[in-house]
Amino acid sequence: MTSPLDALGARAAALDHSFAATDLRELFELPPETVYLAGNSLGALPRAVPSVVEHVVRRQWGENLVASWNRFGWWDAPRRVGDLVGRLVGAAPGQVVAGAPTTVNLFQVFRAAARMRPGRGVVITDPGSFPTDLYALEGAAADVGWRVVLASPPEVPAALDEHGEELALLALSHVDYRTGELWDLPGLTAAAHEHGALAAWDLCHSAGALPVGLDEAGVDLAVGCGYKYLNGGPGAPGFIYVAERLHEAFEPAVRGWHGHAAPFAMSPEHAFAPGIDRARISTPPIVSLLALEAALGVFEGVEIEALRERSLSLTGFLLDCLEALVPELEAVTPREAERRGSQVSVRFEQGFGLVRALAARGVVGDYRDPGIVRLGVAAPYVSHSDLLATATAIRQVIDAGEHLSASEAEGLVT
Amino acid sequence: MTSPLDALGARAAALDHSFAATDLRELFELPPETVYLAGNSLGALPRAVPSVVEHVVRRQWGENLVASWNRFGWWDAPRRVGDLVGRLVGAAPGQVVAGAPTTVNLFQVFRAAARMRPGRGVVITDPGSFPTDLYALEGAAADVGWRVVLASPPEVPAALDEHGEELALLALSHVDYRTGELWDLPGLTAAAHEHGALAAWDLCHSAGALPVGLDEAGVDLAVGCGYKYLNGGPGAPGFIYVAERLHEAFEPAVRGWHGHAAPFAMSPEHAFAPGIDRARISTPPIVSLLALEAALGVFEGVEIEALRERSLSLTGFLLDCLEALVPELEAVTPREAERRGSQVSVRFEQGFGLVRALAARGVVGDYRDPGIVRLGVAAPYVSHSDLLATATAIRQVIDAGEHLSASEAEGLVT
Repeated sequence: MTSPLDALGARAAALDHSFAATDLRELFELPPETVYLAGNSLGALPRAVPSVVEHVVRRQWGENLVASWNRFGWWDAPRRVGDLVGRLVGAAPGQVVAGAPTTVNLFQVFRAAARMRPGRGVVITDPGSFPTDLYALEGAAADVGWRVVLASPPEVPAALDEHGEELALLALSHVDYRTGELWDLPGLTAAAHEHGALAAWDLCHSAGALPVGLDEAGVDLAVGCGYKYLNGGPGAPGFIYVAERLHEAFEPAVRGWHGHAAPFAMSPEHAFAPGIDRARISTPPIVSLLALEAALGVFEGVEIEALRERSLSLTGFLLDCLEALVPELEAVTPREAERRGSQVSVRFEQGFGLVRALAARGVVGDYRDPGIVRLGVAAPYVSHSDLLATATAIRQVIDAGEHLSASEAEGLVT
Repeated sequence: MTSPLDALGARAAALDHSFAATDLRELFELPPETVYLAGNSLGALPRAVPSVVEHVVRRQWGENLVASWNRFGWWDAPRRVGDLVGRLVGAAPGQVVAGAPTTVNLFQVFRAAARMRPGRGVVITDPGSFPTDLYALEGAAADVGWRVVLASPPEVPAALDEHGEELALLALSHVDYRTGELWDLPGLTAAAHEHGALAAWDLCHSAGALPVGLDEAGVDLAVGCGYKYLNGGPGAPGFIYVAERLHEAFEPAVRGWHGHAAPFAMSPEHAFAPGIDRARISTPPIVSLLALEAALGVFEGVEIEALRERSLSLTGFLLDCLEALVPELEAVTPREAERRGSQVSVRFEQGFGLVRALAARGVVGDYRDPGIVRLGVAAPYVSHSDLLATATAIRQVIDAGEHLSASEAEGLVT
């Protein structure tokens, strides 16, 4: 007779075997004996990155100096990296640029959206959005006189019925950063459009984790960051998507010389560049940007749909393991595959202590107030066996009371 | 009897000898046989940077992953780097943060200034400002209803007389990016204050090149970039200065979670952090930011005043060499030391061809329309002998007509 643990172990092995084609852990540098479940906060280091960064620093900057702007394609990097990201989020080339920080891109999107829907004074957003989205929106809304109506995605249809005619923009995150819930991007985008509004999506927790299908869903505007599932490194530049049909109307508030129609003419008057280039602002952090470009090589030989299948198998298996081994934990991530991002979050009062104790055992997750333990599952480098080990470690931590001895909260960064 | 060239050679050697204490070329990786005079566009690579970047990528990101936010001080880096820059620009600690791009910081400064001077509808700026300054101001001015009055610094006193009572902000660059002219920051700041206005300065071409004395001059707001005389690498993060007395009133338009009073409380409502932290926006590009931090080590053992003395000797000597050897070139950089930044610009119709031909001879300068050749003099790694070699090379290029064969303009980036 096999124990539940043995049965889960056999299942993990079988699943890892059947998903071997999407096991890309070899492409990453990860510390040994570590189960890394914080890739939704900071993606792991792709093996290709260090030598590229060294080349950028020593050969490009150090030896070729300013000539590198042309010689090594620095000037075109925002477009080049943008198109690589575009492939992952379902955007045809020429609609995404990378380089500016996510929060700045959010502000640009909000302000530009307001110009595109004059006379409409309401924006709907999720009160559970990542705070920076809310702060950027608060500032932009104050600028343009928008009223911010708070509605979580399930409440959006009712909010649309109430405010649809005044609605300028529906601004949502594709995946809830705390619970890992995946929202219905095509459906909600269509609903916003039915009311004549624009739809903008924050893809921070979906880009690189699952197919987004921006073009197919007719999304208008989107932003995302480079350092989570795209593995671009700490503070890697963000990206911005503007649907081609909106390029001419897209007039962001922060205007810099890289978004100018003729940047080297040094004209004192501003004129927006044609196409997606107008979403550029200024000189991007080249070392960080080219690190992101190298990191995106991970996705070269694999389809995002295949990674999504792997991710769903992984998170589903993690939910099973937790249910079997730690039934007292309440999962806040939905069971249904179509409602699940690429993380599993559980509610646990001493969650911070649990995360600390797990880290001491080599299982790295993170914690978000109030009482949410986030276990991010980056499909390229996490295995089913890793997740069984995680549930086992949680069981052991709780049994031994290790979570109770972790002291005062220390900031852990999203 | 010595030739003029021999005399200049002897002078170069004597000057290099007497300024040996500020010759920091050993701290930089520069290609051999190169005279690098584009440090006003992209500073050279400090020798300390590559190993720091490698550590950040491999050890911090790769091995320590999210734990690095606390373990390696990533979270505090914007303050830490800000204070290092502050020392160079005459700002006491706690008034500068680094991390956001310069153009974004400009927008923040303009919008915050407008809030601090309600009821005043004019901003004065130099039409010769670097274009991105003008574009950022154009956007911000449209937001707040400011009228932009164009006046070059010599015309500012008259403009103040005309618009002083309506004036919210005087926004100028410390050094003209084309001509290298240094403007009277203390005098113009005081003049703006006399009319009840704020003064904001762009230090892109002075930070790291000469003493700025922000606190002493009572400057209100300032920004600057990390990749010119600070040698932080391509697209290195910029910095922003807010005088301590204005911290409470400083309310920038782009608001992100790193500038929040309690960033880890994940509160849906925005609240500005106390102090300079409110000028932070979001996760900075850590690899680029820590490269900048390492680069600032160049300034550890040297006073900016000593580098300024060296710089003035260098640019003065370059002007002498050009006058002696290439008298047909018209210098547009002032002769007077107190009006000179750290570059020498000359007007030459075929300037683009000249720059290309010089580069082929190992002398790297750059070109700006219309007809301006910029020779940036980064005191730490440029010598008097380099500058004699530069003037000699210009003579040879022109005599041989090499500047005439350089083809169509190709973008060279500021």
